[in-house]
Amino acid sequence: MSRVPSVQDILSGDRSSLSRGITLVESTLLADMNDADRLLDGVHAKTGKALRVAVTGAPGVGKSTLIETLGMHLVQSDYHVAVLTVDPSSPQTGGSILGDKTRMPQLANHTNAFIRPSPSGNVPGGIANTTRRAMRLCEAAGFNVVLIETVGTGQGDTLVSQIVDIVLLMLLPNAGDELQGIKRGILEIADLIAVSKADGNMVNQARLTANAYRRALHLYPERSRVIKVKTVSAHEKTGIPEIWEAIKDIERTAHENGSFEFRRSEQIKTALLETAKTLLLSEFTESRIIDAAVENFQQQVTAGTRTVTDAAHELVRIYRTMDSNTDPDVEGSS
Amino acid sequence: MSRVPSVQDILSGDRSSLSRGITLVESTLLADMNDADRLLDGVHAKTGKALRVAVTGAPGVGKSTLIETLGMHLVQSDYHVAVLTVDPSSPQTGGSILGDKTRMPQLANHTNAFIRPSPSGNVPGGIANTTRRAMRLCEAAGFNVVLIETVGTGQGDTLVSQIVDIVLLMLLPNAGDELQGIKRGILEIADLIAVSKADGNMVNQARLTANAYRRALHLYPERSRVIKVKTVSAHEKTGIPEIWEAIKDIERTAHENGSFEFRRSEQIKTALLETAKTLLLSEFTESRIIDAAVENFQQQVTAGTRTVTDAAHELVRIYRTMDSNTDPDVEGSS
Repeated sequence: MSRVPSVQDILSGDRSSLSRGITLVESTLLADMNDADRLLDGVHAKTGKALRVAVTGAPGVGKSTLIETLGMHLVQSDYHVAVLTVDPSSPQTGGSILGDKTRMPQLANHTNAFIRPSPSGNVPGGIANTTRRAMRLCEAAGFNVVLIETVGTGQGDTLVSQIVDIVLLMLLPNAGDELQGIKRGILEIADLIAVSKADGNMVNQARLTANAYRRALHLYPERSRVIKVKTVSAHEKTGIPEIWEAIKDIERTAHENGSFEFRRSEQIKTALLETAKTLLLSEFTESRIIDAAVENFQQQVTAGTRTVTDAAHELVRIYRTMDSNTDPDVEGSS
Repeated sequence: MSRVPSVQDILSGDRSSLSRGITLVESTLLADMNDADRLLDGVHAKTGKALRVAVTGAPGVGKSTLIETLGMHLVQSDYHVAVLTVDPSSPQTGGSILGDKTRMPQLANHTNAFIRPSPSGNVPGGIANTTRRAMRLCEAAGFNVVLIETVGTGQGDTLVSQIVDIVLLMLLPNAGDELQGIKRGILEIADLIAVSKADGNMVNQARLTANAYRRALHLYPERSRVIKVKTVSAHEKTGIPEIWEAIKDIERTAHENGSFEFRRSEQIKTALLETAKTLLLSEFTESRIIDAAVENFQQQVTAGTRTVTDAAHELVRIYRTMDSNTDPDVEGSS
């Protein structure tokens, strides 16, 4: 079986092909990028149809339990649900707290669900773009809801908002005077807030917390949208249909006022720039011509006959003027 | 006073010029990068002479107290000490725990010391390279010891080891069975371990911990170098001269066996590649020709007449073939 799945493999919904396709889009090797590009181009017409929802919040707030419960609610209503994760906090070490299938045992075993752990990478913007490409493969494979889990750092939220239609922010019940997450950044990104763990003797506190957030959100009259606030217990499975209803409401309104399409179009711009930057850097890093020049310049700089900055400018000039086709390591990029 | 300091300003050791120079090398704007490049080229002959030492370790281990105490020990021995920080953990938000001058009040006020907080930036590799450039300005300004503070995440250590001669790893006294930091990554990077807070009723525990590390390090016979382990109390100012002596010992040995020069030459290669990549991305991002093309492609992708990958390849082609001189936003890069 080839490592690179065919367009037909992806469109057929075959899980193993989808997994291999995602591995391909996660690679920054030029040859893989070219294969991935061809695959994405091939499935292009079948992408963009899913509702893309981010689930964000601090570690321990209950994101994966919510995703498992919401996901099960959706597959039982005949949705096909893909779960992906973005974790910009550990770009290199990969010690990801996210994406472990064992945290979503029911959903992971359901025939209409697909769960994929976090990709790793060096550039935060690149991780979001990689996830975006993985998401499009999931759409081509027939998934019509994509849930993206991310840690609720300011950075993670900003990145994930570049690739989804709706951001669901999860917060813990907290009747104290400190409202977590009511920051300008979150306000500009979240579409819906879910106060989690609204079960057992926490039900009242969760409701109080939700009310406190509702009041706090009213203090920001400059906002053009209303952020809905719900309580949810993934444990007791209460509030889940209401969350989904709220998500669908937001989607409907966004379609009506045109903001849905506007947001998708702006995301295309980001995707375009990020894809081009990754391509630039991969072409540059993998070129044998550049390799040889670097070795040469390294000696000259060490010997003191050239400066780093001068050599760097020269490297960029060489990259820009070299013919890709004469460089055996750079293929198919023209 | 011009925002861009002259070569003479830097070489004179003027602090305000040095500060402005560092601000310049931290910028990723193409015009600033070009100014910074000219400045670095101008001071080139006066750089590379300092001993470059990284101080790494978990938050709370006592890095800044050690740097303050070690720094004071050095300035009193007529060294000129610059302190820089690298914090890859908060690339965007900048909520840096590092680099606060008020944490090193004595050193910050000493005439032979210079303290500069963490630069911020998007790309981890870029942060290390920016710090490297700042370090070279410090060397040109007459500082002959540069201490670089970094948080001891795997990533931070790897990055900082790309720009220093010696890595000092700080660890807390911990006689328990869990030895922190004895991981392959740390072993490959650290040259010296300091067990901190060896004071008051912790002296014995610190010694036990140091012995435990010494024993553990013997279990890795494949290592070519010996990692020294010392105890230190920045509070009681004990162990500080011994730390400096150990650093100088490591430097001497590295000069004798040629590893010092080899390491510096390898770092030049990294610096070359990182500088070229930053230049590539800045040229690309700031080009008006690219801007216009992106807008055009965004419409085509939204309309479905072009794919993102096709547009990204086309953007790279436009960037590579455009004449920098005809693009008003790209100047001086050819």
